[in-house]
Amino acid sequence: MIRIDLISAVPDLLKSPLEHSIVGRAREKELAEIVIHDLRDHTEDKHRKIDDYPYGGGAGMVLTAQPIFSCVEKLQQEREYDEILFTAPDGEKFKQKHANQLSMKGNIIILCGHYKGVDQRVRDELITGEFSIGDVVLSGGELPALVITDALVRLLPGVLGDAESALTDSFQNDLLEGPVYTRPANFRGLKVPDVLMSGDHKKIEEWRSMKSEERTKQRRPDLYENFKKKN
Amino acid sequence: MIRIDLISAVPDLLKSPLEHSIVGRAREKELAEIVIHDLRDHTEDKHRKIDDYPYGGGAGMVLTAQPIFSCVEKLQQEREYDEILFTAPDGEKFKQKHANQLSMKGNIIILCGHYKGVDQRVRDELITGEFSIGDVVLSGGELPALVITDALVRLLPGVLGDAESALTDSFQNDLLEGPVYTRPANFRGLKVPDVLMSGDHKKIEEWRSMKSEERTKQRRPDLYENFKKKN
Repeated sequence: MIRIDLISAVPDLLKSPLEHSIVGRAREKELAEIVIHDLRDHTEDKHRKIDDYPYGGGAGMVLTAQPIFSCVEKLQQEREYDEILFTAPDGEKFKQKHANQLSMKGNIIILCGHYKGVDQRVRDELITGEFSIGDVVLSGGELPALVITDALVRLLPGVLGDAESALTDSFQNDLLEGPVYTRPANFRGLKVPDVLMSGDHKKIEEWRSMKSEERTKQRRPDLYENFKKKN
Repeated sequence: MIRIDLISAVPDLLKSPLEHSIVGRAREKELAEIVIHDLRDHTEDKHRKIDDYPYGGGAGMVLTAQPIFSCVEKLQQEREYDEILFTAPDGEKFKQKHANQLSMKGNIIILCGHYKGVDQRVRDELITGEFSIGDVVLSGGELPALVITDALVRLLPGVLGDAESALTDSFQNDLLEGPVYTRPANFRGLKVPDVLMSGDHKKIEEWRSMKSEERTKQRRPDLYENFKKKN
């Protein structure tokens, strides 16, 4: 079973997304073990401090090395880790291929960046991979760590039911999904396209492929180009 | 005061990230009002169903139109909304500029995508903007909605203290931040660069600019090119 250890300065923030939906069910079914660690439990500072001012001056606090080294080393004494990841705005953009790769691993630590950042010695000595989820400034690396966890856990064998597995359509084949409709056929005069009600599976497939290519071409020309190259 | 209404099929998942750190404090200080809505509270179905099979067949369930229309219309009777956003893998990539723009708005609804998707008539009739946070498949649009909320709330006047405002360094000027260090100067033989301890502010600034450009050039050549064009 995969184990993910999340280390954070605001551990309670991480709770609810790990307790519901697909990740929550994967934990209940014991398909994934996810453990949250409070950085403050590992500091040797008598005031439980885990941050300090940056050398050289400037605004913002920096997470100190000691609590992070202590927490990681304690975990490493208990088991071997395949990856120690760090979430930070200057990391590599997290993509589906990374989720695919990470879902094959055994034990993973994710250290959540926070405040102005973390002492560079942590990144130099401990971290094996740094990820960002996009060019947007967030309060911390906690939400990115949750995104990585979710993307990875849903790929584990047995986690997704049939009804959910179709979600993998987008990005696994370079095309966005086209429009979907459900009952009623007429909602306040707004109608479902005739072809979807035709029962003609060949026509439905053709329509879906066309709509899927159309949407990808319009919204994500970069993905569409990849698709065209491969097909 | 800005108001953000989050509509979700798994509302409890959203809780903890909105109760801690910067977003939690912004709510306590009444700088932002954030309300979570359970889609099931708005269905007219006697079994409280909010999804149904897709027309035309295939795996995955689709969120039905009625509960979403009912929830949005109830909110619209209470106040005017500037934006009704939808989080979905085929939306526009959410970037800092979107956070900047949204932080100027008054009232915003964010509908979280879930399952295979939402009935297209919802997107055609109600939604004013669709966002994705990257090319990765997630269990739902809840984490992306939290990312948007966090990015937006931290930009509101009065939300960030001085110590935190430096976080905006990355992406606001096309450069990634360089390495940061804090005490101790020597941690297990790993030393802080001399220049940061020199007290020479001009040299420190030069070193930081150099490191910042270096890291951006190496990790994000796309951002570096933008930076070079402007400078």
